Amino acid sequence: MKAAIIFGSQSDKPVMKKAADVLREFGVDFSAHIISAHRVPELLTETLKKLETGGVEVIIAGAGLAAHLPGVIASQTLVPVIGVPISSGGLGGLDALFSIVQMPKPIPVASVGVDNAANAAYLACEILALKYTEMKDKLAAFRVKMKADFARDNSLVNNGGVDL
Amino acid sequence: MKAAIIFGSQSDKPVMKKAADVLREFGVDFSAHIISAHRVPELLTETLKKLETGGVEVIIAGAGLAAHLPGVIASQTLVPVIGVPISSGGLGGLDALFSIVQMPKPIPVASVGVDNAANAAYLACEILALKYTEMKDKLAAFRVKMKADFARDNSLVNNGGVDL
Amino acid sequence: MKAAIIFGSQSDKPVMKKAADVLREFGVDFSAHIISAHRVPELLTETLKKLETGGVEVIIAGAGLAAHLPGVIASQTLVPVIGVPISSGGLGGLDALFSIVQMPKPIPVASVGVDNAANAAYLACEILALKYTEMKDKLAAFRVKMKADFARDNSLVNNGGVDL
Amino acid sequence: MKAAIIFGSQSDKPVMKKAADVLREFGVDFSAHIISAHRVPELLTETLKKLETGGVEVIIAGAGLAAHLPGVIASQTLVPVIGVPISSGGLGGLDALFSIVQMPKPIPVASVGVDNAANAAYLACEILALKYTEMKDKLAAFRVKMKADFARDNSLVNNGGVDL
Amino acid sequence: MKAAIIFGSQSDKPVMKKAADVLREFGVDFSAHIISAHRVPELLTETLKKLETGGVEVIIAGAGLAAHLPGVIASQTLVPVIGVPISSGGLGGLDALFSIVQMPKPIPVASVGVDNAANAAYLACEILALKYTEMKDKLAAFRVKMKADFARDNSLVNNGGVDL
Amino acid sequence: MKAAIIFGSQSDKPVMKKAADVLREFGVDFSAHIISAHRVPELLTETLKKLETGGVEVIIAGAGLAAHLPGVIASQTLVPVIGVPISSGGLGGLDALFSIVQMPKPIPVASVGVDNAANAAYLACEILALKYTEMKDKLAAFRVKMKADFARDNSLVNNGGVDL
Amino acid sequence: MKAAIIFGSQSDKPVMKKAADVLREFGVDFSAHIISAHRVPELLTETLKKLETGGVEVIIAGAGLAAHLPGVIASQTLVPVIGVPISSGGLGGLDALFSIVQMPKPIPVASVGVDNAANAAYLACEILALKYTEMKDKLAAFRVKMKADFARDNSLVNNGGVDL
Amino acid sequence: MKAAIIFGSQSDKPVMKKAADVLREFGVDFSAHIISAHRVPELLTETLKKLETGGVEVIIAGAGLAAHLPGVIASQTLVPVIGVPISSGGLGGLDALFSIVQMPKPIPVASVGVDNAANAAYLACEILALKYTEMKDKLAAFRVKMKADFARDNSLVNNGGVDL
Repeated sequence: MKAAIIFGSQSDKPVMKKAADVLREFGVDFSAHIISAHRVPELLTETLKKLETGGVEVIIAGAGLAAHLPGVIASQTLVPVIGVPISSGGLGGLDALFSIVQMPKPIPVASVGVDNAANAAYLACEILALKYTEMKDKLAAFRVKMKADFARDNSLVNNGGVDL
Repeated sequence: MKAAIIFGSQSDKPVMKKAADVLREFGVDFSAHIISAHRVPELLTETLKKLETGGVEVIIAGAGLAAHLPGVIASQTLVPVIGVPISSGGLGGLDALFSIVQMPKPIPVASVGVDNAANAAYLACEILALKYTEMKDKLAAFRVKMKADFARDNSLVNNGGVDL
Repeated sequence: MKAAIIFGSQSDKPVMKKAADVLREFGVDFSAHIISAHRVPELLTETLKKLETGGVEVIIAGAGLAAHLPGVIASQTLVPVIGVPISSGGLGGLDALFSIVQMPKPIPVASVGVDNAANAAYLACEILALKYTEMKDKLAAFRVKMKADFARDNSLVNNGGVDL
Repeated sequence: MKAAIIFGSQSDKPVMKKAADVLREFGVDFSAHIISAHRVPELLTETLKKLETGGVEVIIAGAGLAAHLPGVIASQTLVPVIGVPISSGGLGGLDALFSIVQMPKPIPVASVGVDNAANAAYLACEILALKYTEMKDKLAAFRVKMKADFARDNSLVNNGGVDL
Repeated sequence: MKAAIIFGSQSDKPVMKKAADVLREFGVDFSAHIISAHRVPELLTETLKKLETGGVEVIIAGAGLAAHLPGVIASQTLVPVIGVPISSGGLGGLDALFSIVQMPKPIPVASVGVDNAANAAYLACEILALKYTEMKDKLAAFRVKMKADFARDNSLVNNGGVDL
Repeated sequence: MKAAIIFGSQSDKPVMKKAADVLREFGVDFSAHIISAHRVPELLTETLKKLETGGVEVIIAGAGLAAHLPGVIASQTLVPVIGVPISSGGLGGLDALFSIVQMPKPIPVASVGVDNAANAAYLACEILALKYTEMKDKLAAFRVKMKADFARDNSLVNNGGVDL
Repeated sequence: MKAAIIFGSQSDKPVMKKAADVLREFGVDFSAHIISAHRVPELLTETLKKLETGGVEVIIAGAGLAAHLPGVIASQTLVPVIGVPISSGGLGGLDALFSIVQMPKPIPVASVGVDNAANAAYLACEILALKYTEMKDKLAAFRVKMKADFARDNSLVNNGGVDL
Repeated sequence: MKAAIIFGSQSDKPVMKKAADVLREFGVDFSAHIISAHRVPELLTETLKKLETGGVEVIIAGAGLAAHLPGVIASQTLVPVIGVPISSGGLGGLDALFSIVQMPKPIPVASVGVDNAANAAYLACEILALKYTEMKDKLAAFRVKMKADFARDNSLVNNGGVDL
């Protein structure tokens, strides 16, 4: 199971690290790359080719502002691309969301929520589970544990409530 | 290769048909279902179970307004869910987009653009290509043809231009 | 008079506590529950059934992001559901507002303002007053006192003004 | 079971009629009034008093633009007020939505979606059901029928699908 | 020259003080009042009557959220009402702006920018200048001084520039 | 009583005519001018000087897109300027609203609602009434008639209702 | 003087033709190309190289939705790129505007207004005038004529007005 | 190579300084001016004339709120004007962006992103490069260095990745 995380600048690191944490948790082999679609387009193309040669199966791409990176990647590969809109400045990430989610057909990007890189990684795992039975099992186990943890942490046993 | 298209009302049909057309073009076996997450939640759960038993590998879900359907589906299955925000009324689909893309972790929905059901299907094909070599080949051929068609239709041979 | 307050995560607690404070002030018996619509849907259904069995008469539900919780609750009960959109991230709560207020017919949620859980509780009291005369009396007395307090706190006696 | 529907201008009639249709369907006794909060404030106050004397139990109020009507009504009565934001012009009803839902505490308005007067009436019925057992029964029967109708209309028997 | 400043809560004071400062600078006699349109509507009506009896000539009204106060005042007086949308929470004041500026005809409110109470006072002065020659003179002198101060403070003499 | 209506293009005429109709109804002497702030700035300055010489007392200025006209006028005169944001294209008039209402201090523009030129004229009348007793009387009579007409047109006699 | 107009699809033609009309009017030699940044990226690169070889001095690029085309072009050339956001669907062109104007440094795109391709061409002429004296003269003459035409068409001689 | 940077208030200085830094880096001779379009319009006109006499070739203008400054400058000169929308208050700079980018034809302003004065300067350099070969060379060298620096800073040699 091979994934890649690509983002455009050092400042995106704290957001994108959340994707890395989830991928590690699920045992997905991945590499991370800081590549700007507009500053080093040739290196992006090269890296994508190398990633494809290396067997990458899903790519998580995060960007802010006019967030072209996920769409540009999607235009150069057949691997599913998951876009993470990163908020910055006063527009609250709406600029990045529009730049990612409104991709014209037939070049889709799968957008998740603003700054929600963790969800991008969960989605990547679900996609990988299509092919890898062990990932499907891990996800199933994760959901069971998630439910149990949530119930325990929030005193949901016997439909109990919390103090408020 | 098995997919499902689910949407909440007859009025969503013209938008969602564009996904069906693409799936057919790529030879994906799919069924389509009109199910409201809020009006018939039990039938949604039943249908999802039946779809899973039947081996569904990716689900495309379209909804408008407070578009909960894709997220509710995602919470009940491990299969990747692609959400199509459908515009209606004066808010231009922004209501549906927010209701789909802003899903909290760890239950992601892969959002595509407003009313862009065709892109949802292309994304579904890319996801299926992870497992099915023939889909990867079809997509590769499709992109080659897309480029050729685009070049021909827009007089791009020899970097030619168009009259304007 | 029985109410319930339900919200999706520990982080919503400070906002939702304002609803609890008002319910206590008006002598409404209530329980509070942290339940995610998407992480523990079965527990939500169970809790709702138990609440209904226990005679719950109005439910206040708060959520942020793609705030599905109020709508999902509304689809599973006939008890009036009041939704509190909770702000988070850069979209200022507009995502949660749209996800709550734009519910399709015939499954309404009564939305109040962003982060305004206190108003949700006042609305709950008004709804309970339909059935309980003592609540109607309490609300009437509250409004009288509110007016008197407001007038006193803001020097409104004899149409007086304030220093500015 | 007594309700009232109030809106500010003849042009709101087509939207608000959808509320009337639902109330009639559920056997709610109601009167409808066209009253502007700003053009005839005294008549609004008089009408509200008369409605209260007549035993009104819930009020549905619709307005567009700077939609003050629902909030102004809420400030003059203890009866629950349900607000219907009505779209007009280029802002898509967002102006009316904000003017209704963002009411300051402790004067809540229960907002439903833009132009969704039907949902306002369903919500009114749920509120009335708190007191009237027959309404609770009607709503329960309605939901059963709604599910059956939805399943039949959309070929959901045996998790069947539709042609697309 | 008589003006009044009215706003709905103590929390609006820092914003509205900017209007008071300008009115004082221009020698406008004014009183300030904290009155909520929805919590003490009768006191608002009484105060407006007293202000009219006292000869008020322009009213500046500030409010946040569903900012009904300026419009409600405008519906009860013929005196020009200037509205100041006050920002609060995540919507950035857009809620208050819409609730003030989108007033239906024939009950206008003169809206100024979000939190820009100073501009409301300058506008009040311009309106008063219609009747009072001394105010016209003061405004003319103010503009002359404003230009001179601006030129001096920003080194504009001889089209000079600044260091950057 | 002298007013002026200024707008930037022939296409704004249908919207701005509504202001003219109201001014005529109230007996305000006015002239109308199509002047672009950016295409003929010198003519704007000349016209403003001539209008001031002619005793203009209030100016209504309408514009769409980056609606600078009202603000530019306000910077060149001490006469109160009322701005009418005119909708065009897909932004629904929000562009024009922001460009008009967000004027920096100390150069205010009194903004009314999008396309609501009638309200601009009513506001102009209220401003003129500050100085002209006959206008105050006309406005008072208008409001009395408005209330009577509204009550009659909407069957409000004896708090009656309408069919819905 | 050599320019190029590039846009992503046949459907953009009516908007972009307005740029061509202006360029022709000012005697700018230009070619027009329909090239999608995402469907035929290699042809875009080739065409840009050929255009640079041919001496192109300014590029006007129009796109809708997630409008990456202008930014992608800007990343591959040193020639100034002017972006035209094209409206489509319910978001009113705000998606395209954000995708064009919010480009990260140091790869700027010069954005003009939504669907305002004419302004893109005027801007192109102003840029060309930096180098070409004849263009500066043409622009100066155009502005003189524009002022005269505007004054004549709108009866501005002697500060006259229009009927309204 | 002569440029000018103009902005409306001392508070804009930190944003606009980023433009100055880039211009200095590229050896562009420039002067900076704090001039308000509305407070000192005559000084703006004078300064523009002096700048034109001095041979200014491109103007960068920054403004917030109802950001008229860039458009007003564009209406008084044939030199290309680049607008920088500056964020302030709760609207996140969207007010300034609309006021700058939505200029009506035929008076364009080249808008860059919110607070992105650096990009305005890079665009200015690209425009100057049309005429000055040395600037074209500098930009070409800058891009080469930018790519090399980016690759080095982000460990892109041999398509390497980063730790995450």
